[in-house]
Amino acid sequence: MEFGFEEKDFLACCGSTKFAKEMALASPFASLEEAVSAARDVWFNKVDVHAWLQAFSAHPQIGDSTPSSHHATPTSAQWSKGEQSTALATATGSTLQELSEWNARYRQKFGFVFLICASGRSSGEILAELKNRYPNRPIAEFDIAAQEQMKVTELRLAKLFSSKANVSSTTDQ
Amino acid sequence: MEFGFEEKDFLACCGSTKFAKEMALASPFASLEEAVSAARDVWFNKVDVHAWLQAFSAHPQIGDSTPSSHHATPTSAQWSKGEQSTALATATGSTLQELSEWNARYRQKFGFVFLICASGRSSGEILAELKNRYPNRPIAEFDIAAQEQMKVTELRLAKLFSSKANVSSTTDQ
Repeated sequence: MEFGFEEKDFLACCGSTKFAKEMALASPFASLEEAVSAARDVWFNKVDVHAWLQAFSAHPQIGDSTPSSHHATPTSAQWSKGEQSTALATATGSTLQELSEWNARYRQKFGFVFLICASGRSSGEILAELKNRYPNRPIAEFDIAAQEQMKVTELRLAKLFSSKANVSSTTDQ
Repeated sequence: MEFGFEEKDFLACCGSTKFAKEMALASPFASLEEAVSAARDVWFNKVDVHAWLQAFSAHPQIGDSTPSSHHATPTSAQWSKGEQSTALATATGSTLQELSEWNARYRQKFGFVFLICASGRSSGEILAELKNRYPNRPIAEFDIAAQEQMKVTELRLAKLFSSKANVSSTTDQ
């Protein structure tokens, strides 16, 4: 069985239009593993630094639960909320306030949003990681953010494949 | 003796407005060495990736001798011409044509101009280096381009100090 997706599906996984176009061209994939392998190659070797910045800008600020206009697609907005559910469930008012302040400092220094694969992480862990990464050189942090984006992309590709497999097994019956 | 410069002087050395502002704030400098040391800290540790991209965009394409609107200042346009004088003097029509084609491929892949400290290098050496760097990952190439920009900046800071020293020794007489 083959999994065919459209550009907008990949854009929900990673908000770079170049990435989404390249993935749509490489599609269909025989498996999730094949799609992840293609995605890693496109993300780290093919798309340029502008594409990375575009993808980063499609993320809301961690801890910011208000609806955002940043999201590339409605699907990515929904997924992002799910990915941050542990962080939001564990957050106190003061942690959220501190997260918000450190996010602003981070953006001021690096010129893009603090990006972390938040899935399963508490707000305290995320805040600690933000403070830990803040002293990094801008180019080092740019590279780390891209690796975090790839982790997010992999989780979302898995969701994409799982939704397609569910639809497929229903219609096959 | 102290060397005081304005923001526009530093902008002629490196086309990032953030870099120029930071350098103007750190000015005056007691020596060229002190200015270079400050410049390295600002460039590699303080300004963000957007500042790098802005500085890169202030460079003309190597081998392109037509007047450009890219330059941050008239001084940088003049310096750039001087830095490329060896390359232009050693260039044949076919080398220039090949350089132009590879520059276009490079820009297509990386999203910014091919940046090299051209001073004293022949067009053949520059073309070989372009082909050598082309297979790099975008993030690696971004880092290399920033290091080349710093070499250009250092040469230009030396010119800035030397012009100031000349003016100073003239007026001191």
